[in-house]
Amino acid sequence: MTGTQEAVDAAMIEAAEARLSGHVRRTPLLGSPFLDEIAGKRVLIKAEALQHTGSFKFRGAWSALSALPPEQRARGVIAFSSGNHAQGVARAASLWGCPCVIIMPRDAPALKIANTRAFGAEVVLYDRLSEDRDALGDEMARARGLTLVKPFDDPQVIAGQATAGLEIAAQAQEFGIGGGGTDVLVCCGGGGLTAGIALALEARRSGLRVRPVEPEGFDDTARSLERGSHVDNAAAAGSICDAIVTPRPGMLTFPILKRLCGPGLAVTDLQAMQAMREAFLRLKLVLEPGGAVALAAALYKARDCPGDTVIAVATGGNVDPVLFTRALAILDTGMDGAGTE
Amino acid sequence: MTGTQEAVDAAMIEAAEARLSGHVRRTPLLGSPFLDEIAGKRVLIKAEALQHTGSFKFRGAWSALSALPPEQRARGVIAFSSGNHAQGVARAASLWGCPCVIIMPRDAPALKIANTRAFGAEVVLYDRLSEDRDALGDEMARARGLTLVKPFDDPQVIAGQATAGLEIAAQAQEFGIGGGGTDVLVCCGGGGLTAGIALALEARRSGLRVRPVEPEGFDDTARSLERGSHVDNAAAAGSICDAIVTPRPGMLTFPILKRLCGPGLAVTDLQAMQAMREAFLRLKLVLEPGGAVALAAALYKARDCPGDTVIAVATGGNVDPVLFTRALAILDTGMDGAGTE
Repeated sequence: MTGTQEAVDAAMIEAAEARLSGHVRRTPLLGSPFLDEIAGKRVLIKAEALQHTGSFKFRGAWSALSALPPEQRARGVIAFSSGNHAQGVARAASLWGCPCVIIMPRDAPALKIANTRAFGAEVVLYDRLSEDRDALGDEMARARGLTLVKPFDDPQVIAGQATAGLEIAAQAQEFGIGGGGTDVLVCCGGGGLTAGIALALEARRSGLRVRPVEPEGFDDTARSLERGSHVDNAAAAGSICDAIVTPRPGMLTFPILKRLCGPGLAVTDLQAMQAMREAFLRLKLVLEPGGAVALAAALYKARDCPGDTVIAVATGGNVDPVLFTRALAILDTGMDGAGTE
Repeated sequence: MTGTQEAVDAAMIEAAEARLSGHVRRTPLLGSPFLDEIAGKRVLIKAEALQHTGSFKFRGAWSALSALPPEQRARGVIAFSSGNHAQGVARAASLWGCPCVIIMPRDAPALKIANTRAFGAEVVLYDRLSEDRDALGDEMARARGLTLVKPFDDPQVIAGQATAGLEIAAQAQEFGIGGGGTDVLVCCGGGGLTAGIALALEARRSGLRVRPVEPEGFDDTARSLERGSHVDNAAAAGSICDAIVTPRPGMLTFPILKRLCGPGLAVTDLQAMQAMREAFLRLKLVLEPGGAVALAAALYKARDCPGDTVIAVATGGNVDPVLFTRALAILDTGMDGAGTE
């Protein structure tokens, strides 16, 4: 863990904000009358796909690395991930000029391995069948003095993701959105971003309520919130929203979600794909399936949200062209196409 | 014409900025180390595809409509366009609550007609072969007291587009870009945006130089600048960059370009498509071909630009899914694909 063991509080979030200032993009809050029409209410999209490395993960990574004592950071960091967290950590380490090891399965797609290397990381491949990933990571970390950057169960990572919530609080004010009755829908995997945004909105007394959104069948957070304790998913994989499929809510994140978040929502893979297509047509924004589930809920589950406005966080856009093309080919019953002049 | 006949000056641009404030998005300046690597220098992209209605045209439309005397505006506006200008004018009129007529050819794609209507405009169709578009428009304008909003040869439209230049001047400062040697590449059709940005950068004494970018074979502006007087394109159509194919530079815009802009650049349709693919992969931004030519020049004509930084204006993202899919399918020799975790 990169940070302290203490709970994430407003002071930690503000400290992260100061460290991130000038290094992280303030992503825009977008909207379109066409999306409002689908939802039957005003829909605003926090476009975190426009963040460095194509997802919000860069915030947490920068927060974690910038919180390390300089001599510890100089020895380097290590992370397990083949996706958005890997890219965020690799890029942050590259900008800090410190070593970065990313542990990836040997059978990961060649392009993901190439991309992670291109962001400046040393990629260490392991065999899923014959090697123990955690043991390999622990050994490398010990031997080289590397610090493990966890994807969500790390206070400094949560504090970094929370800065997206600080921006949402400020932007909601700019848009004249006055709290009560407005839901902020967040694509939820391990819950680092969802917890961070909830803490930030609490700290700013925004009156906005955070609700996690997950793929149907992988709604461990929604069911855990309903039950009040950790519930696992039945399956480990099987949704196209792979970036947010986690076995269960995090140990640090779940108590925060339990205290601050409203009931979870779940959408189908098809709805996630339709939301990707709408983001393309109406916002000119590229989203990956897992980064589109909150928008999908805003558009297709609007009846489950009170108020006349809903804010959806579009968390990432790292999608390969073939899958994106499939999403564009989906037909819907509503207004279709876009001018090309 | 909606505005005065006088030349566009700094005061007009600042007045437009005040009228646009709160109604137009301040679009972000994006970048990616992958794009820097292709160009061999720093590339920053002004993401005007994220503007309302998916292109910069909303700026000029809002400027023109907001500059009208209230009683004139209340009678309504009219425009000729099936594309981005149509959408900008239709949306601005809808927000002002005034009538809006868009004259479109009967054989325009059904989806463009539907979209223009969905933005709130009354669409009047004409037959290209048997009807005179201008006569039809003049008659309607006279009969109903509508004001014609031209796409580029209108001082208030140019002043509106100039606000993108004011933002670029401020953002260049935020990024620590100090003028001398930095080119601002702008996708150029009639020259309204290019002229507006050049005037704004002059007014702010930014030291940045504006250069128009066009499709090969339709580089009337580049050739007119070289010759010092208006030169027409040989063909009227034939580039996929249809949004910026115009027969010749505008009457109001060309003298501004001649006074302020550096030599033009031209890119192939293939380069425009490759730039669309890079914007998808690296910026998570949807661009149409005509909105991608400046980025294409930044990436593939970098040797023609001095300095270690280049700014490219990505002007629009209104592209239909089929054409976008074609751009995604283009293979290049560089780094490929994106992580999808």
